[in-house]
Amino acid sequence: MSEFRPPVDDIGFVLAEHAAIADLARLPGLGEATPEIVAAVLDGAAQLTAQVIAPLNRSGDREGARIENGQVVEAAGFGEAYRQYVEGGWNSVPFAPRHGGQGLPLVLATAVQEMVQTANLAFSLCPLLTQGAIDALSQHADEELQRVYLSKMVSGEWTGTMNLTEPQAGSDLAAVRTRAERDGRQYRISGSKIFITWGDHGMTANVIHLVLARLPDAPPGVKGISLFLVPKFLVNADGSLGERNDVWPVSVEHKLGIHASPTCVMSFGEHGGAIGYLVGRENEGLACMFTMMNHARISVGLQGVAVSERARQQAVAYARQRVQGAAPGAPARVAIVQHPDVRRMLLQMRALTEAARALVYVAMAEQDRIHHHGDAGARAAAAARIALLTPIVKGWCTEMALEVTSLGVQVHGGMGYIEETGAAQHLRDARILPIYEGTNGIQALDLIGRKFLRDGGRALQALVAEMRDVAATLDNGPLADIGSRLEQAIAELESTAAWIAEQADADGVLPATVAYHFLMLAGTVAGGWQLAVAARAAARRLATGGDDEAFCNTKLVTARFYAEQILPRARMHAEVVRAGAEAVMALDEALLA
Amino acid sequence: MSEFRPPVDDIGFVLAEHAAIADLARLPGLGEATPEIVAAVLDGAAQLTAQVIAPLNRSGDREGARIENGQVVEAAGFGEAYRQYVEGGWNSVPFAPRHGGQGLPLVLATAVQEMVQTANLAFSLCPLLTQGAIDALSQHADEELQRVYLSKMVSGEWTGTMNLTEPQAGSDLAAVRTRAERDGRQYRISGSKIFITWGDHGMTANVIHLVLARLPDAPPGVKGISLFLVPKFLVNADGSLGERNDVWPVSVEHKLGIHASPTCVMSFGEHGGAIGYLVGRENEGLACMFTMMNHARISVGLQGVAVSERARQQAVAYARQRVQGAAPGAPARVAIVQHPDVRRMLLQMRALTEAARALVYVAMAEQDRIHHHGDAGARAAAAARIALLTPIVKGWCTEMALEVTSLGVQVHGGMGYIEETGAAQHLRDARILPIYEGTNGIQALDLIGRKFLRDGGRALQALVAEMRDVAATLDNGPLADIGSRLEQAIAELESTAAWIAEQADADGVLPATVAYHFLMLAGTVAGGWQLAVAARAAARRLATGGDDEAFCNTKLVTARFYAEQILPRARMHAEVVRAGAEAVMALDEALLA
Repeated sequence: MSEFRPPVDDIGFVLAEHAAIADLARLPGLGEATPEIVAAVLDGAAQLTAQVIAPLNRSGDREGARIENGQVVEAAGFGEAYRQYVEGGWNSVPFAPRHGGQGLPLVLATAVQEMVQTANLAFSLCPLLTQGAIDALSQHADEELQRVYLSKMVSGEWTGTMNLTEPQAGSDLAAVRTRAERDGRQYRISGSKIFITWGDHGMTANVIHLVLARLPDAPPGVKGISLFLVPKFLVNADGSLGERNDVWPVSVEHKLGIHASPTCVMSFGEHGGAIGYLVGRENEGLACMFTMMNHARISVGLQGVAVSERARQQAVAYARQRVQGAAPGAPARVAIVQHPDVRRMLLQMRALTEAARALVYVAMAEQDRIHHHGDAGARAAAAARIALLTPIVKGWCTEMALEVTSLGVQVHGGMGYIEETGAAQHLRDARILPIYEGTNGIQALDLIGRKFLRDGGRALQALVAEMRDVAATLDNGPLADIGSRLEQAIAELESTAAWIAEQADADGVLPATVAYHFLMLAGTVAGGWQLAVAARAAARRLATGGDDEAFCNTKLVTARFYAEQILPRARMHAEVVRAGAEAVMALDEALLA
Repeated sequence: MSEFRPPVDDIGFVLAEHAAIADLARLPGLGEATPEIVAAVLDGAAQLTAQVIAPLNRSGDREGARIENGQVVEAAGFGEAYRQYVEGGWNSVPFAPRHGGQGLPLVLATAVQEMVQTANLAFSLCPLLTQGAIDALSQHADEELQRVYLSKMVSGEWTGTMNLTEPQAGSDLAAVRTRAERDGRQYRISGSKIFITWGDHGMTANVIHLVLARLPDAPPGVKGISLFLVPKFLVNADGSLGERNDVWPVSVEHKLGIHASPTCVMSFGEHGGAIGYLVGRENEGLACMFTMMNHARISVGLQGVAVSERARQQAVAYARQRVQGAAPGAPARVAIVQHPDVRRMLLQMRALTEAARALVYVAMAEQDRIHHHGDAGARAAAAARIALLTPIVKGWCTEMALEVTSLGVQVHGGMGYIEETGAAQHLRDARILPIYEGTNGIQALDLIGRKFLRDGGRALQALVAEMRDVAATLDNGPLADIGSRLEQAIAELESTAAWIAEQADADGVLPATVAYHFLMLAGTVAGGWQLAVAARAAARRLATGGDDEAFCNTKLVTARFYAEQILPRARMHAEVVRAGAEAVMALDEALLA
């Protein structure tokens, strides 16, 4: 198995050239993000993740998590690694200084998060869920709840969870049945939740659950759901821990991948009712939950980048040391990295991963603008852009991860199928990404319905205009072909979107039917846009004689590969969309069987 | 978990309409394949596979295989299921009556094999390897070896293996190091082999290994490899079993999938040398091995169909019972099969699976013609066709299987990621298919090099002409659109092939660089050709008022879906090919890392 080498070079390039971190650092409140601080954060995160967290990836996969005496026991070494993560201050990077955070840009926290995810996807989910809980509490909880809980969660001393899913309520949260009864100023929660990531563990003294539940007099459906904070241990007035609350892990799922991330069935209130505190207002829980879900969706796209990066590194390392057969023009046996089809696979892995990385960071930079930009118009534009990009990032970057991790297995040949090699783990780990935080089918509906049709296509038009500006600047030398291929792909996106808008009035079923291919069309083009930005920047750096010539040359080839081998998918998705809905809807349910 | 329902209807349709089994039954030696016999074979195989073999699929996955006291212990129940398989005569269906076989067409044996594979992929590999060994012995072994071994292998009383791979010799068999020393009329074999499927087990009294090894005076490379038969137990003159031979399973791999199929490291000759018998002539072992490998490659394509069928059935069953959310136009919560994107996934699974099934059977029918046709020209045409189709079937049908089994997980949502559901097993099982029996990279090189360029494009031209004839007959009513979409895709294949032939003279590296996309282009078009044949037959059946109206209507929708949603990939692959090799070959090895 290969060692993990944090991709600091490419992350640094993406922060500078795609996310324009220097511009972000000029926004009010983000002045801490000096070049020195950025470099120090990247180096420190690289060290921690490579040396402490990455080595637990295979062992965690083998060991998994288990329940003993009513508590989840995490895989060996995870507790110590988490302690180092917290002590290094890594959990608090993006949060507000008033809660103990470091107030650094989200794009920089994204770099830290990516390295943690790449090192160990299962481990990374624990801080990720905590971050979502912090966001929800920061925006919706009252002063008192924030005072008691936030600083310990920001530091990472306590972790957080999201309790949404129930057996009958997966994608459809309207069906939530968990009950909340008023009990003075607090509430008593009872019911069962499933698929709760890091729902329990022994790494921290407390676990803070955010739980969707329904009051006795709540209206039916999603308008009757409230959000509650339910701590594993109650917290005394002085901040010390009090009684064990009535919330328990019941079992841990046996999953295809991310074995070291305990996916728990949680039981609330079997012994009198778990004490909970209302977050936000009664019956407005879903909006609070979406606060954390939107951010989490982009983070899942980032997970796609992370696991792809890990798979790619391992595949390249294997291909460079595995000698097998003669390649065209080579007389003797050579390492398989010399075989053209292996090179094709390695470049495909690289092109998809780097395009997706840039896209995620660009989306996160919008988040920084929403929080810090002084101009309301700029904040609104950022909000519209991130709303549009969220389902694209989540959907496309996770489909991409399946493709890349599967290619990683293929590069290994028969060895890829042997678990000890580690290549298969990345595919197993990646397979959850198109499912959780809203399946990609849900993302596609969100994109085509809420983000495109309901908006009258305005946000997409703005994006298309920006993409076209980039394509237009690639008008000479080796970049011209990238530019013209991107221009064609943008035209496919634009005309397909117009066609959908036209048809949707007459045919209400059509959008849902073509939504998946529309999302993949948008993602493919967006990835091409980002690698065009990358090519432009790399060409500029080469022209001005920087010290990263090899890196920039590789970037140019990667962008060209994407334009030649990935962008042709745009037209394919467009053709599928334009074939319409009839065949999909033609059969009775029984005939589908 | 859903029960397995053998797809007898579609297999019957494919045998009749795609493989033209009635025509095959008129060939010399295949007269036994009357409609009554065909129906009885399908029914019997359906019963055995559904009732006996399929129920062991999940338990076999959980239990796997292990080594105890120098022998592999297979998963519980497998021995009894294998006994019933042998007693029912299922192993002997396609073999020559002179060896105790039933002399039925290979396409009919393919139907049996598909049902066994669909029921339990891991189980099916044991008879599959035996069949390959029988083919090699039938064609290359002398009379004495055939007399002693063949009838017991045809009945299934003894099983067979293929021992090719060594740690340094995977795709590159020239690197084989296992030694064979002459010892009177026999040989002493010593060395180590890896990745030996069903290399040992307790289901039968003997296991017959076919082993590639090198004589002391052999020339280097593939021209110095010989094939030997090495039995686990030596066989006495009277046919009874004698001494234990010096061949032992050393370990069983821990794999991503097909857990119940023991993948062994085998050790030959650690205690004096394993006794082996030469098959064919010295130093001509590779040709003998290719006899079994070509057939095995089509069978691996069939495995892609089989595991896809299993995944599809399970996904449809889940989608019909899982209630979640409201669909467009439906007021209340509905089963997810009503959601358009779920329907899209289910139809995609069906269209790919049925196209691939027809393609495999059409290839197998050529094999029947090679063995039984009275006309030498017809035999030669069949041989040219199957040579061309083999890499397409192996490559495309196995890539298709990854797509379909991954969609099967997706349809299940979060439940698909939980191992108990069983959906993930199909993806894990399928992931070996693009790797073994020659990676798909090797298949792609075989197609573009040996089967296309070296042949001057003749076999491909003949195939294109036949496809075009089919497209031309779909010229009216609802079939016209299928016909014209197929016609466009064929034109992409033809022009891309011509472009490659043109370029290949000047650029020796190009073919290897574009080989994968050329294979996928050919497979996509071939699948469309087969579903066009299916649509034509279904329309004819509907017009003549058969009793399978629902089946034929579904087939028409499936063919239309393929034409609309899968065939657009043809142009995408063509565009990638025509972008050429430069980007793939541009980087130094170090820059790929």
